[in-house]
Amino acid sequence: MPSIITFREAPSADLPSIIDMLADDALGKTRETLSDPPAACYVEAFAAIDSDPNNRLILALSDGQIAGCLQLTFIPGLSRRGLWRGQIESVRTARRFRGQGIGRALFDHAIAASRERGCGLVQLTTDKSRSDAHAFYDALGFVASHDGMKLSIES
Amino acid sequence: MPSIITFREAPSADLPSIIDMLADDALGKTRETLSDPPAACYVEAFAAIDSDPNNRLILALSDGQIAGCLQLTFIPGLSRRGLWRGQIESVRTARRFRGQGIGRALFDHAIAASRERGCGLVQLTTDKSRSDAHAFYDALGFVASHDGMKLSIES
Repeated sequence: MPSIITFREAPSADLPSIIDMLADDALGKTRETLSDPPAACYVEAFAAIDSDPNNRLILALSDGQIAGCLQLTFIPGLSRRGLWRGQIESVRTARRFRGQGIGRALFDHAIAASRERGCGLVQLTTDKSRSDAHAFYDALGFVASHDGMKLSIES
Repeated sequence: MPSIITFREAPSADLPSIIDMLADDALGKTRETLSDPPAACYVEAFAAIDSDPNNRLILALSDGQIAGCLQLTFIPGLSRRGLWRGQIESVRTARRFRGQGIGRALFDHAIAASRERGCGLVQLTTDKSRSDAHAFYDALGFVASHDGMKLSIES
């Protein structure tokens, strides 16, 4: 029987599971720090997201178990006649749930949430080394019209 | 004598000047609508930006005259140990002020504001057709490590 996929905004109790997913990734494994309880930097970032009506941390659950996550940020702007954007970041599917359509379901959910919020555009940047991700976003209809440029200012 | 460049957050009285700058651009001219007073879509978008502590509409003034603008959005996130990002959008220099270092000054200001706010990364996407802009961001130290992908969901 196919599993049932549901969605919820992440409560703070799910923070360790989310950090696990962020870290279990070719790029993420060098960037994240796993600890129990989670490091203060994650707890503070979670609180900032959770208290901001323009930021949502969305979980996909497969038969009730955490299977994937993404962050959705709603950004107002003047350009394009005052277009709001839904921006997607930190997309992950938990390893044992990969290949089961979780990513696709998460994106369908995030795109619907963006539309409901009045956004006219959904956008993301993907590291050029992630060729599988690029193909996945292509298949969803995303167009790689832009370069995503980053400047590190970490002290 | 070189002009004096200053910065301020845009008050609503500056909205017509900002829309003029957004529209006076190879891509913007097909996307924006000029009218006096500005169309409701711009007034509403301005209010959304102005009321959000994570969004700033920054003007550069050259000897007190509006010379350029950009939007800076502060985005909290869990990835990279809870890294905050400063995201830059809708960068313009007014035509008669081009070639005078206004863009560079705006970016220096936005990068400093991002650092002050605790961001570890400044990011933007630039349309691949804007080769001059790409070179400008390169010179500032931005790295085109990502593809910027967009999905239109306008109804």
